[in-house]
Amino acid sequence: MRIGVLTAGGDCPGLNAVIRSVVHRAVVDRRDQVIGFEDGFKGLLEGRYRPLDINEVSGILARGGTILGSSRLERSRLREACDNAEQFRRKLSLDALIPIGGEGTLTAARMLADAGIPVVGVPKTIDNDISATDRTFGFDTAVGVATEAIDRLKTTAESHQRVMVVEVMGRHAGWIALEAGMAGGAHGICVPERPFEVDAMCKMIEDRFERGKKFAVICVAEGARPAEGSMPYERGEIDPYGHERFTGIGTRLAAELEQRLGKEARPVILGHIQRGGTPTAYDRVLATRFGWHAVEAAHRGEFGMMTSLRGTDIVMTPLADATAELKRVPQNRMDETEAVF
Amino acid sequence: MRIGVLTAGGDCPGLNAVIRSVVHRAVVDRRDQVIGFEDGFKGLLEGRYRPLDINEVSGILARGGTILGSSRLERSRLREACDNAEQFRRKLSLDALIPIGGEGTLTAARMLADAGIPVVGVPKTIDNDISATDRTFGFDTAVGVATEAIDRLKTTAESHQRVMVVEVMGRHAGWIALEAGMAGGAHGICVPERPFEVDAMCKMIEDRFERGKKFAVICVAEGARPAEGSMPYERGEIDPYGHERFTGIGTRLAAELEQRLGKEARPVILGHIQRGGTPTAYDRVLATRFGWHAVEAAHRGEFGMMTSLRGTDIVMTPLADATAELKRVPQNRMDETEAVF
Amino acid sequence: MRIGVLTAGGDCPGLNAVIRSVVHRAVVDRRDQVIGFEDGFKGLLEGRYRPLDINEVSGILARGGTILGSSRLERSRLREACDNAEQFRRKLSLDALIPIGGEGTLTAARMLADAGIPVVGVPKTIDNDISATDRTFGFDTAVGVATEAIDRLKTTAESHQRVMVVEVMGRHAGWIALEAGMAGGAHGICVPERPFEVDAMCKMIEDRFERGKKFAVICVAEGARPAEGSMPYERGEIDPYGHERFTGIGTRLAAELEQRLGKEARPVILGHIQRGGTPTAYDRVLATRFGWHAVEAAHRGEFGMMTSLRGTDIVMTPLADATAELKRVPQNRMDETEAVF
Amino acid sequence: MRIGVLTAGGDCPGLNAVIRSVVHRAVVDRRDQVIGFEDGFKGLLEGRYRPLDINEVSGILARGGTILGSSRLERSRLREACDNAEQFRRKLSLDALIPIGGEGTLTAARMLADAGIPVVGVPKTIDNDISATDRTFGFDTAVGVATEAIDRLKTTAESHQRVMVVEVMGRHAGWIALEAGMAGGAHGICVPERPFEVDAMCKMIEDRFERGKKFAVICVAEGARPAEGSMPYERGEIDPYGHERFTGIGTRLAAELEQRLGKEARPVILGHIQRGGTPTAYDRVLATRFGWHAVEAAHRGEFGMMTSLRGTDIVMTPLADATAELKRVPQNRMDETEAVF
Repeated sequence: MRIGVLTAGGDCPGLNAVIRSVVHRAVVDRRDQVIGFEDGFKGLLEGRYRPLDINEVSGILARGGTILGSSRLERSRLREACDNAEQFRRKLSLDALIPIGGEGTLTAARMLADAGIPVVGVPKTIDNDISATDRTFGFDTAVGVATEAIDRLKTTAESHQRVMVVEVMGRHAGWIALEAGMAGGAHGICVPERPFEVDAMCKMIEDRFERGKKFAVICVAEGARPAEGSMPYERGEIDPYGHERFTGIGTRLAAELEQRLGKEARPVILGHIQRGGTPTAYDRVLATRFGWHAVEAAHRGEFGMMTSLRGTDIVMTPLADATAELKRVPQNRMDETEAVF
Repeated sequence: MRIGVLTAGGDCPGLNAVIRSVVHRAVVDRRDQVIGFEDGFKGLLEGRYRPLDINEVSGILARGGTILGSSRLERSRLREACDNAEQFRRKLSLDALIPIGGEGTLTAARMLADAGIPVVGVPKTIDNDISATDRTFGFDTAVGVATEAIDRLKTTAESHQRVMVVEVMGRHAGWIALEAGMAGGAHGICVPERPFEVDAMCKMIEDRFERGKKFAVICVAEGARPAEGSMPYERGEIDPYGHERFTGIGTRLAAELEQRLGKEARPVILGHIQRGGTPTAYDRVLATRFGWHAVEAAHRGEFGMMTSLRGTDIVMTPLADATAELKRVPQNRMDETEAVF
Repeated sequence: MRIGVLTAGGDCPGLNAVIRSVVHRAVVDRRDQVIGFEDGFKGLLEGRYRPLDINEVSGILARGGTILGSSRLERSRLREACDNAEQFRRKLSLDALIPIGGEGTLTAARMLADAGIPVVGVPKTIDNDISATDRTFGFDTAVGVATEAIDRLKTTAESHQRVMVVEVMGRHAGWIALEAGMAGGAHGICVPERPFEVDAMCKMIEDRFERGKKFAVICVAEGARPAEGSMPYERGEIDPYGHERFTGIGTRLAAELEQRLGKEARPVILGHIQRGGTPTAYDRVLATRFGWHAVEAAHRGEFGMMTSLRGTDIVMTPLADATAELKRVPQNRMDETEAVF
Repeated sequence: MRIGVLTAGGDCPGLNAVIRSVVHRAVVDRRDQVIGFEDGFKGLLEGRYRPLDINEVSGILARGGTILGSSRLERSRLREACDNAEQFRRKLSLDALIPIGGEGTLTAARMLADAGIPVVGVPKTIDNDISATDRTFGFDTAVGVATEAIDRLKTTAESHQRVMVVEVMGRHAGWIALEAGMAGGAHGICVPERPFEVDAMCKMIEDRFERGKKFAVICVAEGARPAEGSMPYERGEIDPYGHERFTGIGTRLAAELEQRLGKEARPVILGHIQRGGTPTAYDRVLATRFGWHAVEAAHRGEFGMMTSLRGTDIVMTPLADATAELKRVPQNRMDETEAVF
């Protein structure tokens, strides 16, 4: 077989592990050819690719980033490709295409699949918000980075009787905030799924100070928002990439807490350090398994599907299911900790 | 309610996280009393315990070990306790007992449950070999430590054109060897579930050297054994604790490889560093959830059960199921990597 | 002897290691009494202290923060204490006082020493900007945290063809930026000691992109400022604590680079995670040695002095020297890397 | 200039950082040519080398091992080279040779220098036992790995009331044992410089158990030996590489302690994980500075010298001084901790 692979969307620890695994399984075990498209779908559309053999993927398992590069997708150009899919596939002699990416990528993958390209998707997002899989690789690493930050901030908060507000990634789903908050023992956790109540949070902090625990750490997802009337809040300016360029929620919440409580409160915005660097062992294993199973699915002709973790098994699920709905933190997971406000 | 908690068996990162979670859920949220028995079942049998409140568990979430201590169980004394269970329970005024431990502990827990003690078990083993749960806490930390070791050994093996043999924990099940081997990109993995072939391993290493990859890292579970006739092997002396005191398999395999290949081969035995220290974020979350659900199960009166991870949910499963059979690495997991010999 | 110890100023990994070392050397080896003042000089002035024995310092060596708490100093109250120093010393029966702190603390220490209090200072600052010592503890940890962040950002910058600007601590001296920048291989480093040229930095980045290295990481000290006319810059609002509350230099530089280069540029502000958490082995050793030598100096009656690292030795230097001048990055250190702009 | 660089001797984190720094300074800043000899002196003698440009050293700063490979030196062949030094130098058109290595390498470097080869040495040893420099790169990383191991072992020792004996590297000098022991808070430290007293160690452990601290961690250098009559000890078989192939001192000491104290004692042999993997920020900075200064020394014509850290400065010292005497742990450093036995 001739298998194409590409990585698209935001960075995510484990991308290289998938690429390496695809090459190991396909080239070494199955004597397939593998080509890697550069810069995501751009490379596919522009025919920019290079053959990937075992030497190309040597030493990349533990490395962050992606050796293939990534880019944002231009929808119009993708549609064009879909319109000429068969012709396109033949030109590249592709027997299978394995796009590795998040929601946007998987939606694109589905469009390509519908247009006749033999696609096997591999889901990727540090946010863990893809429905069809129990977990995505990259998430464990992001939670690990955020947890270590909370560990560090706790000792400094305690020594200086401060409130620290840590803003972590998660625009639409609060998985990182929830798990890093639980793992780090944050006293407050704010997720996009539930507007948070500043009054209740202030009360919790004041109770702590009264009990002699003169510090608190709050872990807030970037997409968390205060409950109506809970604190003054208006959206900031939106930049061309759809990001809110105004002061983020972490900074605003810290300012609000400082003012209300009359205690020092400091924001820390973790940002991109959650996205880069060496993946955890967990993420490397999951990414490696995804890569292996994607090749197997291609050989079985299971196209229009993507790899998913279900319990301890990797199974194939339709791309349509993956992108139907965002996987948000459900009520019962929030109930497991008193810290969610 | 009055809830007793104890930790038994070998050390495992996350024990303190369970204890803390039990106290948080029971004492803070549900206004229960919690007492902690010291040194495992010994403390239970000897009535040595102390009340656990929120201050006792402050700052322990990220700490390895167990603030309650642990010990090995003497079966005869346990049987005695079972014979006088009701009397025993009354004397301690226990409404629920939450033993946290591995296979031995859960078997003991089941005996106590059968004798009428209201038990909710929490499974624990870095080996991940308990059937009823997808994963156990401690395992992720152990895999992380072993993976970091393999990462480090790879660069030194490569620079010096050496074979490194890393022996990891896993007497009866090869989970740590498998996942650390995959995550670290070990070229050979040996698990107790499959006697390994030294000839095939030598061939793989020689092929690597011929291709210019003049090094190899082998990850071997302490319980792995060579296939019959594969290399000279006889069991060593067994010490009073049931450990084989003779040179371990890692050291023996390295010597064998060095002799056969005529290349330097060095063993590294990771040992107890896999068991101690700060748990990973993953293990802290799992341990915290187990603690929370154990308290809830006690309040619902679901005794004779233990907490289990199934997919993304924590469910209760009968203690009997947990100890019925060891969870070994199945064939399909070994198939996912060419490295298992 | 009766020795008082206190920690003052900002948090710094290694404070607990000093406290522990003072207690070990004084109480265990020399049979002294040690008392710990709470919340820095505040506890001294208000007579809030507790005896410190070996149990109090058990398990704190690797912990960030300070078990004694810290606080900012009110100069007026300190002066008061100085005016009544002898009376004060007698009331507390102090034979020696070991204040652990940064420039402000050491200045206060010197005032107390001049007023007759038998003081032995221990220098502390993550910024490494105290003249009389080769290095201060806490610095190595801060550099380590910043370096790991740069490591992580590099892979994500490379995959996405981005410029990442990392703002690290260092208001008046650029040691953290310099060493983390060197250790992480940052392509640009900005320190307070040299106003940076944005034009030259843009040229370097463009050259990189032309050579096919389509990413760059810039490490900027929070106190770094652009050269006159290099980019638009005006100081922000100053809050009551003397901090510039306006957007920091990292954020501003990223915006400027994005605009000039027409490439995505993202700021990451590391903030307080550089100050907290487990100290590195280096910092634990240095802190432990400082504590040991402070007790010895007290026993030799060498007051008005502080512990300093000189080469591999710990020596005592006058407090006056320590605070005479800030230790800034000298020209020859900047020359060692082409990355300083 | 045309500069040759090679790495020889045992692996050491930071080797790649030196190579990268030499290339950056020489090729980029000074327009020199750099060639890298493969597998240490072997590549030099056999004329196996490759040109090193900036792309060759891209991304290696944080990587363990050495991209040039290393090997043990055969003295006879080296002597041959010395005898034909001038001819040799001309054949390779070498204006300077920068060998990076430990004591053996530096001795060889000195021989080559005496024979007329323009040599600038860069010292390297994780053992930190080279006289002419305050510290060597690699040492900080090794201490960090060993300290983390002690941190992990402490919690498990405490939970299980055990004695853990950690064997670290250091055949002739106890620097790693001393600093990791201090940083990890080991209760006993054994260094080659002082034969250790098992009686005193047993008493210390028993005292701890009596005080309720029912565990201990002992950090022992591989080259430490018991004081005469302190415990039964005879040397093991010596293998062709001069290593003692019999059970190491860590395993023997653990067995002795277990027998004498009647308490569980377990050995952990860290071995090669101390040598590999990502260098710490400290080691990367030191290695980078060494590389930069080696190039500068070559340009100034300062041959027969090596780079050294003195305080905060890099200075050049004669190769003769470096190898005159091993830098052992002096008495005053042992006095700084009560833990050395």
